[in-house]
Amino acid sequence: MLTGVPVYHRETQINMFKLLNQEGRARRGEFMTPHGTVQTPVFMNVGTQGAIKGALSAEDLSNIGCQIELSNTYHLHIRPGDRLIHDLGGLHRFMTWDGPMLTDSGGFQIFSLAALRKISEEGVAFNSHVDGRHIFMSPENSIQIQSNLGSDIAMAFDECIKIPSPYEYVKESCDRTSQWLVRCRDELERLNDQPDTVNRGQVLFGINQGTIFPDLRIDHMKRIAELDLAGYAIGGLAVGETTQEMYDTIELTEEHMPKDRPRYLMGVGTPSNIIESVARGIDFFDCVMPARNGRHGHLYTWDGVINIKNERYLLDEAPIDDRCRCPVCKRYSRAYIRHLFKAEEMLALRFSVMHNLYFYNDLMTHIRESIEQGMFSEFRKSYSERLSRRI
Amino acid sequence: MLTGVPVYHRETQINMFKLLNQEGRARRGEFMTPHGTVQTPVFMNVGTQGAIKGALSAEDLSNIGCQIELSNTYHLHIRPGDRLIHDLGGLHRFMTWDGPMLTDSGGFQIFSLAALRKISEEGVAFNSHVDGRHIFMSPENSIQIQSNLGSDIAMAFDECIKIPSPYEYVKESCDRTSQWLVRCRDELERLNDQPDTVNRGQVLFGINQGTIFPDLRIDHMKRIAELDLAGYAIGGLAVGETTQEMYDTIELTEEHMPKDRPRYLMGVGTPSNIIESVARGIDFFDCVMPARNGRHGHLYTWDGVINIKNERYLLDEAPIDDRCRCPVCKRYSRAYIRHLFKAEEMLALRFSVMHNLYFYNDLMTHIRESIEQGMFSEFRKSYSERLSRRI
Repeated sequence: MLTGVPVYHRETQINMFKLLNQEGRARRGEFMTPHGTVQTPVFMNVGTQGAIKGALSAEDLSNIGCQIELSNTYHLHIRPGDRLIHDLGGLHRFMTWDGPMLTDSGGFQIFSLAALRKISEEGVAFNSHVDGRHIFMSPENSIQIQSNLGSDIAMAFDECIKIPSPYEYVKESCDRTSQWLVRCRDELERLNDQPDTVNRGQVLFGINQGTIFPDLRIDHMKRIAELDLAGYAIGGLAVGETTQEMYDTIELTEEHMPKDRPRYLMGVGTPSNIIESVARGIDFFDCVMPARNGRHGHLYTWDGVINIKNERYLLDEAPIDDRCRCPVCKRYSRAYIRHLFKAEEMLALRFSVMHNLYFYNDLMTHIRESIEQGMFSEFRKSYSERLSRRI
Repeated sequence: MLTGVPVYHRETQINMFKLLNQEGRARRGEFMTPHGTVQTPVFMNVGTQGAIKGALSAEDLSNIGCQIELSNTYHLHIRPGDRLIHDLGGLHRFMTWDGPMLTDSGGFQIFSLAALRKISEEGVAFNSHVDGRHIFMSPENSIQIQSNLGSDIAMAFDECIKIPSPYEYVKESCDRTSQWLVRCRDELERLNDQPDTVNRGQVLFGINQGTIFPDLRIDHMKRIAELDLAGYAIGGLAVGETTQEMYDTIELTEEHMPKDRPRYLMGVGTPSNIIESVARGIDFFDCVMPARNGRHGHLYTWDGVINIKNERYLLDEAPIDDRCRCPVCKRYSRAYIRHLFKAEEMLALRFSVMHNLYFYNDLMTHIRESIEQGMFSEFRKSYSERLSRRI
């Protein structure tokens, strides 16, 4: 159990977010957690099952500038089971990551991976994608699992709706997600009062939904803002709408998000998406894209995205990006990494994921510095398009 | 090109091997190479295609106590091509490994992987196992490839015969392998005199063959010993004969190997095989077993081999082996590594290969220390059976 950390609930909560600087809507801040302070805007590095795809360890996360790790409730509930992780002292200890950690609620995976879903007011019944086993998850269950994992930030259990969906369905779903949020909050407070809770300083972020219907997004945001939670996320974007629709939705929602709480745009996105969303007031990001692209040989540079498998790198002794200071660029050539891909060596994946995650973390450092120096709009002009182009 | 290294050929060679100590037939020695001195007995860590299976890098090799890396001529000739590696400054530079390196001759892979082989006095014609492309390899070709790679030790091109094979065929094959060895030696000397050779200090080890026919093994060993090469290997074992037949063959061959040159037992083996072969006078080993076993979750400890996927490790917070000081045992629990296997995370493979290779390197350190202290027979008694048992 984590000692010396104040129990977090409604009566005693302090605001853990501090806004340090602003340029336009772009915000430079910091968020305190029981495992350290996160400098924002920040990109969270995804360790789905308590490990990072591409054979990266907790030690590697430290070496690539990761500030906060994100793990998945759904996956860990199924394998190895959150009770087991609780009994072994929580996920921090299990995976040996002692920095800040966020867990998602499982909602997104239930709605994208699991079979035979049935939604009721009570929760969601579904079958595990691994062994078909029947599972029921309520908002309380999701929070219990996240409490067993002991992350610093728990996410509310919500329904993720595909875009497009009928207006009436989205409206009903937002109502349900609002009711579930109250239950999530109450359950977390109950658990934070239990003596055997792993991390009694765990806080809850609410999630805004409403697809791309402006009035539903705004109405839902206003309702959940009243709960005065530690942070708020925009969920259900980057699931089929256009990029412009996504930016428009962020803009209109952001106006109704509490200014003194961090905002998290879930599952987004390209370097360009991140820069544009910072410009619209977002503080937290996560995305599987840098790891997934890395595994396909698509590597980020400050000039755009290269495909390392390309013939042109056959004899190229330069690093992936000579401006990059990641452990891969410090030592290995494009020619060697290309060979590793062609020879189907696992090391190709490790190097590529390591570089791409470092790049994203480094991108956030540059974004933070540019906001501090009042240079963010310059930075945005120089890099927003450039970083996402294929070269 | 490697500068400051003496060109190695018949007229100028010095003996690069120094015998430091002996206990019975077990030998403690050191072998000088242009990339540093190897303490023997030694286990060579296998990086088939210029990378270690399990996503281990050259940097990782340093961290797990690797003294000498082994790469495969056949694989690198096919992908990315040895000319390319030559043009990029050699394999040391390509993979960023600056320690000693040995390359095999390609023979073993041609006889185990490639299709449609045709052997003549001139060499072997075969089809690539990757793209079916027709390739011809003579002893000269094999040495040219190894010279392009720039390893410190090149292996002679030989025919690897399966066990059992008819006496007459083995006899003919040994004659051919002897003739090929002379051509290998002459070609290496020619190449070491060329100005654009990557590593002009490269030396040749001859390979003894003869399956398990005592007279053919001895006769062949005597013939190749006359060439006064930098070292000698016993090849063609651990390919189907019994363990006792292997040990018997080592014993009778060893008597005819030059005492002042290192002996390398190719492709062997379990910790027990290694201890028993050191007791019979062997100095160099290589084997894919620790990496392959690691990928299946079979992990070495000083009490025997455990299967980390076993239910009994579900809640086990101990390291793989609490006497092990490898980067994995220093930080991660059996329960976590078991989870990584069950969740099919690539990190499971990296951790397991890293631990097993460290274990083998550490085993050799203990063997060396025990010979130095005249305690090897004690060490052999305590560990020879124990280390290879399944627990």
